[in-house]
Amino acid sequence: MLTLDFHPTGRHFLQIPGPSPVPDRILRAMSLPTIDHRGPEFGALGLQVLKGIREIFKTQHPVVIYPASGTGAWEAALANTLSPGDHVLMYETGHFATLWSKMAARLGISAEFLAWQGQDEHLPNAPSWRRGVQADLIEERLRKDPEHRIKAVCVVHNETSTGVTSDIAAVRRAIDAAKHPALLMVDTISGLASADYRHDEWGVDVTVSGSQKGLMLPPGISFNALSPKALEASKSAKLPRSFFAWDEIVEMNHNGYWPYTPSTNLLYGLVEAMEMLQSEGLDQVFARHQRWAAGVRAAVNAWGLPIQCADPALYSPVLTGVILPAGVDADALRQLIYQRFDLSLGAGLGKLKGRMFRIGHLGDSNDLTLMATLSGCEMGMKLAGIALKSSGVQAAMDYFAGHPAGSALKAAA
Amino acid sequence: MLTLDFHPTGRHFLQIPGPSPVPDRILRAMSLPTIDHRGPEFGALGLQVLKGIREIFKTQHPVVIYPASGTGAWEAALANTLSPGDHVLMYETGHFATLWSKMAARLGISAEFLAWQGQDEHLPNAPSWRRGVQADLIEERLRKDPEHRIKAVCVVHNETSTGVTSDIAAVRRAIDAAKHPALLMVDTISGLASADYRHDEWGVDVTVSGSQKGLMLPPGISFNALSPKALEASKSAKLPRSFFAWDEIVEMNHNGYWPYTPSTNLLYGLVEAMEMLQSEGLDQVFARHQRWAAGVRAAVNAWGLPIQCADPALYSPVLTGVILPAGVDADALRQLIYQRFDLSLGAGLGKLKGRMFRIGHLGDSNDLTLMATLSGCEMGMKLAGIALKSSGVQAAMDYFAGHPAGSALKAAA
Amino acid sequence: MLTLDFHPTGRHFLQIPGPSPVPDRILRAMSLPTIDHRGPEFGALGLQVLKGIREIFKTQHPVVIYPASGTGAWEAALANTLSPGDHVLMYETGHFATLWSKMAARLGISAEFLAWQGQDEHLPNAPSWRRGVQADLIEERLRKDPEHRIKAVCVVHNETSTGVTSDIAAVRRAIDAAKHPALLMVDTISGLASADYRHDEWGVDVTVSGSQKGLMLPPGISFNALSPKALEASKSAKLPRSFFAWDEIVEMNHNGYWPYTPSTNLLYGLVEAMEMLQSEGLDQVFARHQRWAAGVRAAVNAWGLPIQCADPALYSPVLTGVILPAGVDADALRQLIYQRFDLSLGAGLGKLKGRMFRIGHLGDSNDLTLMATLSGCEMGMKLAGIALKSSGVQAAMDYFAGHPAGSALKAAA
Amino acid sequence: MLTLDFHPTGRHFLQIPGPSPVPDRILRAMSLPTIDHRGPEFGALGLQVLKGIREIFKTQHPVVIYPASGTGAWEAALANTLSPGDHVLMYETGHFATLWSKMAARLGISAEFLAWQGQDEHLPNAPSWRRGVQADLIEERLRKDPEHRIKAVCVVHNETSTGVTSDIAAVRRAIDAAKHPALLMVDTISGLASADYRHDEWGVDVTVSGSQKGLMLPPGISFNALSPKALEASKSAKLPRSFFAWDEIVEMNHNGYWPYTPSTNLLYGLVEAMEMLQSEGLDQVFARHQRWAAGVRAAVNAWGLPIQCADPALYSPVLTGVILPAGVDADALRQLIYQRFDLSLGAGLGKLKGRMFRIGHLGDSNDLTLMATLSGCEMGMKLAGIALKSSGVQAAMDYFAGHPAGSALKAAA
Repeated sequence: MLTLDFHPTGRHFLQIPGPSPVPDRILRAMSLPTIDHRGPEFGALGLQVLKGIREIFKTQHPVVIYPASGTGAWEAALANTLSPGDHVLMYETGHFATLWSKMAARLGISAEFLAWQGQDEHLPNAPSWRRGVQADLIEERLRKDPEHRIKAVCVVHNETSTGVTSDIAAVRRAIDAAKHPALLMVDTISGLASADYRHDEWGVDVTVSGSQKGLMLPPGISFNALSPKALEASKSAKLPRSFFAWDEIVEMNHNGYWPYTPSTNLLYGLVEAMEMLQSEGLDQVFARHQRWAAGVRAAVNAWGLPIQCADPALYSPVLTGVILPAGVDADALRQLIYQRFDLSLGAGLGKLKGRMFRIGHLGDSNDLTLMATLSGCEMGMKLAGIALKSSGVQAAMDYFAGHPAGSALKAAA
Repeated sequence: MLTLDFHPTGRHFLQIPGPSPVPDRILRAMSLPTIDHRGPEFGALGLQVLKGIREIFKTQHPVVIYPASGTGAWEAALANTLSPGDHVLMYETGHFATLWSKMAARLGISAEFLAWQGQDEHLPNAPSWRRGVQADLIEERLRKDPEHRIKAVCVVHNETSTGVTSDIAAVRRAIDAAKHPALLMVDTISGLASADYRHDEWGVDVTVSGSQKGLMLPPGISFNALSPKALEASKSAKLPRSFFAWDEIVEMNHNGYWPYTPSTNLLYGLVEAMEMLQSEGLDQVFARHQRWAAGVRAAVNAWGLPIQCADPALYSPVLTGVILPAGVDADALRQLIYQRFDLSLGAGLGKLKGRMFRIGHLGDSNDLTLMATLSGCEMGMKLAGIALKSSGVQAAMDYFAGHPAGSALKAAA
Repeated sequence: MLTLDFHPTGRHFLQIPGPSPVPDRILRAMSLPTIDHRGPEFGALGLQVLKGIREIFKTQHPVVIYPASGTGAWEAALANTLSPGDHVLMYETGHFATLWSKMAARLGISAEFLAWQGQDEHLPNAPSWRRGVQADLIEERLRKDPEHRIKAVCVVHNETSTGVTSDIAAVRRAIDAAKHPALLMVDTISGLASADYRHDEWGVDVTVSGSQKGLMLPPGISFNALSPKALEASKSAKLPRSFFAWDEIVEMNHNGYWPYTPSTNLLYGLVEAMEMLQSEGLDQVFARHQRWAAGVRAAVNAWGLPIQCADPALYSPVLTGVILPAGVDADALRQLIYQRFDLSLGAGLGKLKGRMFRIGHLGDSNDLTLMATLSGCEMGMKLAGIALKSSGVQAAMDYFAGHPAGSALKAAA
Repeated sequence: MLTLDFHPTGRHFLQIPGPSPVPDRILRAMSLPTIDHRGPEFGALGLQVLKGIREIFKTQHPVVIYPASGTGAWEAALANTLSPGDHVLMYETGHFATLWSKMAARLGISAEFLAWQGQDEHLPNAPSWRRGVQADLIEERLRKDPEHRIKAVCVVHNETSTGVTSDIAAVRRAIDAAKHPALLMVDTISGLASADYRHDEWGVDVTVSGSQKGLMLPPGISFNALSPKALEASKSAKLPRSFFAWDEIVEMNHNGYWPYTPSTNLLYGLVEAMEMLQSEGLDQVFARHQRWAAGVRAAVNAWGLPIQCADPALYSPVLTGVILPAGVDADALRQLIYQRFDLSLGAGLGKLKGRMFRIGHLGDSNDLTLMATLSGCEMGMKLAGIALKSSGVQAAMDYFAGHPAGSALKAAA
């Protein structure tokens, strides 16, 4: 019988930028008995889910739910809209943007990879991993494509590997300014339901997301939010696809069903998550994450360590990347913190392996969860012999105490 | 807050051939907190899962676990081994064999569809849906392919739409007798862990399965068991694939990890399920399902209704298809039974819509669960005005009372 | 780690007359985190619980909730109202009435035990265990007590050991007719929330009940519903008491708190149970149990076995006692049924040990649960070589199919 | 449906000295289906529970488990051993000792209440509430009772209202030195399974404890550990008792059963709790709590606030009382902390209402849980305008980082 009791007592602090800590309320909902996915009650459930998820994406158009991880939804976005040999424009904001471009290549798509080309003292080998998408670079590139060979622009909204967001509306404006017909495809796997996101208003054609971040579910389902233009493009797209094909799913979704077996118990969890989010109000949810992020950054600043995101306008509300002094092994530090304090932090990925760690501040958390997290970081860094300018824990306490949340407490029912 | 209380009291009887009723013990395991899929304890979990699942498939070779529904694993089997335009041989045993062949066509594969061509009085429009794969037809066809244009033979082991199994070892012998190099790919989505299955011994190259049947999990993860020959074929296969690509997964699995976020909480459930199955013993598990199936068939025979499977050697241990008298609307009957008795039965699919219903006898069930199910069927059929020869409930009681299970009761610990 | 897997698969059928099967919804509610029993949210919870429970007892007066089993609530009723040496009138309806009278004796109360004195062919040694309270015997006895030495009349509403109810309103009328000031104390531990019960309307002074029957909770909390007269009596009662003393509890309950630590998680379950009961409607709940009982009795009659309750007007809606032919060992039969069919039935208690078994038809059940239960009984009795007149399972199917429930199905939300 | 979502997100920090946070593992065990308390598997469970609980109390003699709160176990200790009018010696260590003496009075026992009579600058109205039992006072008093009118000495081992422990072995020695036959009865409701306790070695006659502290269960069951001398005394004790009577329980426990319905689901949780405690090792458990307590005291000292326990040899490993500067309303502070930081702290009770707060450091906690707790306290006190000498959070981080736990991490299984 499974116990997972790696530490003798207490709850593990899972402060990676996803999977995020799942509220007990959602785990309870997921333990409802699996029902017949062809039966009458499932249709009602399906319609409820499909209506709710559109509100989360802020769209009037279909949202396709896959019984698959977020990586599957990446593939779905490409496979439903493109044909073998198509050319797309991607932008190197970090590890996940890189992985997406590699996936495109595997699928036979020619992916051109733009990146910010400046210098960076802290991450000289990956300067663009501290910045967001430069919409002007995209506009410039599109203007150089009068034959419209570029079929899509693919960017990441909230780079989980860096803690940098990108201005999606600006990318849309860039495409429009270039009068280019390319589709705009956006990965907000780690941004949805934590950071402000507006599929329709920002003119996104395909938005890709997943369950295990702001939606606070375990991993296992993922999403494609569509635009009419994307649906139109899918009719002539030639990449082979079946499991991920939109057409049958969108068709059967009209009655609340799926063409194959959906992840029923995760859909239960999704209903519960959406009820929690809507009950709090999405604007409150976004403000809550912004406040948490500010408190965490106050700590990082006090420690005297560089925040990975170099542009304060683009700080992620979901996670904060912390760059360690040269010579420090970030992964050894994370292991020490895990073993001594039962706290999981995110690793430096790809080009940043061993150089930094990431603090997730999303999901089922609160001020004290973050104080515990920052305490674990601070104790661990001291034990590892890292010189800190001052106490980040102190700074975070000052921030949290000094900035009350908008609506900290519901009245007892 | 989600309640799913469609009926005023009691537990729903989910007697469809999958998703099967999930044991509470598995639901409890799935409610353990989600952990870091890159952390140290996850590797240990992953290795435990990967070792256990090979025992279930009876293979020494890799088993790839997808965070996706079974339909995804169908696509994975095709996409990893075939190239655009390849020709494959499939066999029409029922609705799911048909769907798999349609998927092949969507992926750009040329799928030739064999079928039994005899007459059937009860299902004149789908005679092959009452029988298993005729291995001699396959051998005959392969002998007519001296250039080895046929790249794979794809068959279904336990047709969920019909309750007919097929003799996979015989198909292997047929391929070997024809001295043909085609891969053998088998769908045992609804057979695994309920019906005897032997990936290595039967010489299968790719076995496709899912979580929500004999493994008693909710839907959401699926499997490809591989042979060395299949792995070799994947190196030259040209169908584009990324999410489903075996190479990266097999590589990372060596340390117990996955290249992208796995369905952590379903893996918890899988550990628990495998522990339950191994603790009972797979042979006991198979015998248990055979005994249940025999009890259910005793009831159907007593009612005087045709069992869909026309070949007693191929009766499925997992489900039994019941053909209704001409003129009876099977779906109206199922709805009546659902509303009056809180019992879900499987529908007639595809060509059989409205002609029959399917009784699932798998997963978290026991003799009395099946007696409840048969009582619900019998009461429902009487209410629907269907003339029954005699009481199936009586016949099933005679069978179950007369045939004690091999090891009905564990000693109290 | 606890598994309780005494049988290899499927859910245990717990068809004893309590503890009754607990709905998963209640188990889920009970798994909410324990909160501070002195904190602000607890007061809100407490007031909600205390308001709801009065509706279940149909009273305007205080209901005291004990963090203790039902036996504790028996003691509370006596200890709060009586003084050492007091004389009370009790009535032998079965095993639990007997235990209550023994408890009175242990507490130093003089308990006079009335019983029906007729002959009974099936249970010659316990004829009164097939009948309800004879209110005329009580009236007669009270008339012979002009000095009012009798301080209380104590009766059991639904005898869990026999499946016989008693007419509480008639007992009230008998006391009134005798113009006697004795308190009326009623045990409806196994009747509440399954059988019609009206604390105020029937003029009961103390009603004793528990959690693990009609309220569908695990055991662990119990109740005293009070009348103003009982509260008045408690002021001069001299039996020592502290844990069970009403005064402090009633006082602190005004704000939703208890003087000592309440069973917080069972109170969560109670909130959920009351919401389920009120949502269905108490009258529907009572009708549902009556219908179930009628179906079960149809089976017992078909078997040709005597129903223990000899008075059809007093059949319990909660359980049915089945008397076995002389010479049959009922406990051996129950053990056979448990081992072969994973079904627990109630034992014959006290004077009836080994002579009969009891079928519980309460809690989280439905028509098919009862069909499963009756199938298990019928198969077991045949295996034990008991001659049955005809199939009880058949008769129950006829009854359930022929008598649709008032409102079998809620519309999907 | 119950949600208890008083705060918008995250888990509540329940850092009162009981009920303690319940590990999910125990909540899951408690959600196993209720079984027949008269059935064969229950006896096995009961024997397992009764064997395990003796190891926790460190006794070879019977431990009686009540389906009742700890207050019930207090009453049981008195009612089973004493007769009306008996004289007992109690000792005022705090609020709970006071309540126990009041209970004795309600039961008709004459309770003499000793107390330390010195001066205390911080708690002038309750000087004895900062100190443990003075064994010499007890010895002195017993020597003045040559007729042995004193039937029992009753003391509290770990005063939940003060955070002061008492030296039970010393009390035993005092009784022996006085050559007095009085029973020694000890309340370790909040000490058991967190603080070292030895029923047999320390010569205790009745130990009273409960479930919701070191055993990490929800409230609802409680204990009397007995000595042969206590059992002997119960034979002649004259206080009326039934529910709490030892004789029948001890008798039926021989086969693992109880005379009335036990709290089955809490017993499931108890099995799980004992498995967790034994797997860690009781000595490790005690050391873990001592280390936590030291870290918390480091914080209180840094704040410059008096720790309630005035004797460092008697610091409780379970909770720490913090005395606030005169004029500060501790309850207003606790409310502020609850509302802003979702943290529950223990209130000042009885004579100390509003003067202090209590930090629980027991149950399902770890270093970071305590860091979160101390952060909440420190932020709250600053917001309330309380002048702190220095950062307690900093001091606690120094302590926890500087003092690694004996065995912080189990190897991954």
